[in-house]
Amino acid sequence: MAKLRLGIAISLDGFTAGPQQSEENPLGIGGAQLHEWAFELAAWRAPHGMEGGEVNPSSEIVEESLENIGAVVMGRNMFGGGPGPWSDEPRWDGWWGDDPPFHTPVFVLTRHAREPLPMQGGTTFHFVTDGIESALRQAKDAAGGKDVSLGGGANVAQQYLAAGLLDELRLDVVPVLLGGGTRLFENLDGAEVELEQLRAVEAPGVTHLKYRVLH
Amino acid sequence: MAKLRLGIAISLDGFTAGPQQSEENPLGIGGAQLHEWAFELAAWRAPHGMEGGEVNPSSEIVEESLENIGAVVMGRNMFGGGPGPWSDEPRWDGWWGDDPPFHTPVFVLTRHAREPLPMQGGTTFHFVTDGIESALRQAKDAAGGKDVSLGGGANVAQQYLAAGLLDELRLDVVPVLLGGGTRLFENLDGAEVELEQLRAVEAPGVTHLKYRVLH
Repeated sequence: MAKLRLGIAISLDGFTAGPQQSEENPLGIGGAQLHEWAFELAAWRAPHGMEGGEVNPSSEIVEESLENIGAVVMGRNMFGGGPGPWSDEPRWDGWWGDDPPFHTPVFVLTRHAREPLPMQGGTTFHFVTDGIESALRQAKDAAGGKDVSLGGGANVAQQYLAAGLLDELRLDVVPVLLGGGTRLFENLDGAEVELEQLRAVEAPGVTHLKYRVLH
Repeated sequence: MAKLRLGIAISLDGFTAGPQQSEENPLGIGGAQLHEWAFELAAWRAPHGMEGGEVNPSSEIVEESLENIGAVVMGRNMFGGGPGPWSDEPRWDGWWGDDPPFHTPVFVLTRHAREPLPMQGGTTFHFVTDGIESALRQAKDAAGGKDVSLGGGANVAQQYLAAGLLDELRLDVVPVLLGGGTRLFENLDGAEVELEQLRAVEAPGVTHLKYRVLH
């Protein structure tokens, strides 16, 4: 059965973004350190239109995260453009330029309706205003039997985890202490989340942990 | 140079003990789950006087944690016996019976003085009332060039980490969410802790992460 899969980078002290997140600094203070291991990889650079890069044990992890994905769900913060209603002037079409690296339908959770936004390369952003279950249902329909990737951020991840809708969780554990910021594992409203460890992969500057969420 | 080494079990959401720790339930609600991977190992059972048990990739981790250790430092809670001055009737000599599994001098951090307590098998408990630096100095002297093991709990670990006195950190990451309890990484008073990832080992029901603390 098609799965909802989340992969997210996390500091050793449990934060997915540093303190003082803002529009100018969406990862918070120190938060960019969580992604350095990926930026250096050929497997990450190629889909983002960049040449070169390293091959190491993280490469397979990144490649696997893109395999068999038919749709993406993400939160408004990850799509960006600030809070509140959508504006035409200036218009915000995401962080990723004309050809975003998704190449599938992407369902953006928001409180503010907006027409679908087709981009180059097969990515179309759909804006979902009626909640996480609707977004997942639409994404699964669009994925045509493939898995759905949950893009984050932490707040959206928490909602899907608490609702028992997440099937697979990959944590990229980075050896930094951010000391504050956004925690992945909170606001779970007392949900009993049971996990089964599937895999641990050591790589330069990161360890990739993978869990199945038991239902 | 002799190192101060900490190995501690931690839930995926960052807790080393569950909520509502008490004298009756020193690991807090759900906290015992953090140690199940160890209880099943022959490498853990033998030094605790028990027969049988499994051999798996955790075995080497447990064996390594006991190698080249010349002394132990631990907090009062880990030694047990409740808070406050020591009592003779009933007398508390630790959780571990007549022959504790340390077989070295053990320095217990406490606010309350007590005479040294020699046990069978080479373990002697020394009670240190003048702080973490004194305890570490005494332990290093007693260890005769070998490393010192930091026994925990989290509060003691935080103090040594914040003071820049810890050299090596092993986290046994267990796939449970405790949802509350005692966090390892807090109360660090803004200390800048830099870590270098040394190793990640996947084992049944646990992943062992090892870091060097950079000074």
